[in-house]
Amino acid sequence: MHTVLGSASTKVVIGDDQPFCVIGERINPTGRKKFQEQLRAGDLSQIEADVAAQVEGGAHVLDVNMGVPLADEVDLLSRAVRLAQSLTDLPLCIDSSVVEALDAGLAVYQGKALVNSVTAEDERLDAILPLVKRYGAAVIALPNDEDEIPMSADRRLELTDKIIDTAAGVHGIPIEDIVIDPLAMPIGADTSVVGVTLETISKIRAAYGVNMTLGASNVSFGMPGRHTIGAAFLAMAAKCGLTSAIMDARSPQIVEAVRAADLLLGNDAWGANWIAAHRAKQAAG
Amino acid sequence: MHTVLGSASTKVVIGDDQPFCVIGERINPTGRKKFQEQLRAGDLSQIEADVAAQVEGGAHVLDVNMGVPLADEVDLLSRAVRLAQSLTDLPLCIDSSVVEALDAGLAVYQGKALVNSVTAEDERLDAILPLVKRYGAAVIALPNDEDEIPMSADRRLELTDKIIDTAAGVHGIPIEDIVIDPLAMPIGADTSVVGVTLETISKIRAAYGVNMTLGASNVSFGMPGRHTIGAAFLAMAAKCGLTSAIMDARSPQIVEAVRAADLLLGNDAWGANWIAAHRAKQAAG
Repeated sequence: MHTVLGSASTKVVIGDDQPFCVIGERINPTGRKKFQEQLRAGDLSQIEADVAAQVEGGAHVLDVNMGVPLADEVDLLSRAVRLAQSLTDLPLCIDSSVVEALDAGLAVYQGKALVNSVTAEDERLDAILPLVKRYGAAVIALPNDEDEIPMSADRRLELTDKIIDTAAGVHGIPIEDIVIDPLAMPIGADTSVVGVTLETISKIRAAYGVNMTLGASNVSFGMPGRHTIGAAFLAMAAKCGLTSAIMDARSPQIVEAVRAADLLLGNDAWGANWIAAHRAKQAAG
Repeated sequence: MHTVLGSASTKVVIGDDQPFCVIGERINPTGRKKFQEQLRAGDLSQIEADVAAQVEGGAHVLDVNMGVPLADEVDLLSRAVRLAQSLTDLPLCIDSSVVEALDAGLAVYQGKALVNSVTAEDERLDAILPLVKRYGAAVIALPNDEDEIPMSADRRLELTDKIIDTAAGVHGIPIEDIVIDPLAMPIGADTSVVGVTLETISKIRAAYGVNMTLGASNVSFGMPGRHTIGAAFLAMAAKCGLTSAIMDARSPQIVEAVRAADLLLGNDAWGANWIAAHRAKQAAG
């Protein structure tokens, strides 16, 4: 199944027969105090460096999140989307928990965006899916509801079922534009959580064949050696059927792990991409 | 299922609830011209450095192979086993295609060795399994027969079935002492081969629950960026059910990938090993 995203000029295809889709997570003020202060002052200039670093690192899509306390997220997200689109041809993932901010970002976006995100909560489905449909976007959907995040793969599957029924059946969003987030949680909190995520990925892949993405950095949160954990996790997750991740595109170790996964899973014919990337790295010294 | 190997003083357990077992591949003259010349001259002194480097790198078991053209492999293997056991408490994997050499190595070995390897060929089964039984060793078995290496997982499973029937049923070798090699081949030759290996691992795990090991370096043979490919491959393979690999224990990237896999698959309680290894690395500078 192919999820096709686009900017004004560039298309990106997410699919299990495609190279793993790297969604750069960096245009996000969470945990970045200086960037937060800049955004509160209306200064978006940091985005230029963040776009450049992620394009350089090999991102296919850039996530744009402007969630800053005490700031006008609607205005910021609209401006950030326009700015990012002036800086790169890569498609964007418009990321907010505020429905009005998603609407504002989608309104100015040129092309077919990915919306991040909706949950299986009725209120969120009712508010966000009509936007996704109106703008012809694709959407990331998280299988959690009003209760806590479900800690069994089977419950995540039930909620995925609800999401697909509602998005496709009620709102008429094509199933290929529904990207499920199987929910990645910190291994440091409980060493069984990654097993549940991988089982969820395998089961969603078998049951629906839809594309999936997740926040890969969550897995290594609080642990030392984060990039090594992220690299091993993404290789495993790609093998189970994950087709994309929101991840640190500036980390060569993590990006190279998903490129190696492409090679190993037969999504890099003749190893051409792998070999070309190696030559480029050597040429760069 | 637990495969327990031992030296005179140390036990190593291979199992799906255990840390992934790293079998160091370095005590092997293949592709090492200088080492070959030394061995032909009866000089085994290089083994000292090879043992030290692999112990330092985190190997749990050391493979010992003395396959040198125009040399007396029976004598060399017997001497190499004794020398290696004088240098380390780690159990050994006694590696030869020559039955008499395996016999000589097992005869001098103190503890419970791993024999590398037998195939599903009748002649090999008949020659090697009685040795394994007599010395109370464990054995690596490759599911290929007189024909070419089978390129379907199902055929590898049929041959695994034959091996287990013969080793356990005819020769009385406990099933936990049969370690299947699901056959890793170079991705550079054909990008579908790793998919077959991973499918074989998943199916053998589901059908028999036996331990498995393979020559991990084969996968990246001839490609650039070998350690990155090896790291991603081993993470995937561990997720599918591989419990050990014969691998380059001197490569931090590959060894750290299997330690990350332990953490992610719930075989490193509280992340204690991961965190301790990180602290040791920091302390070492």
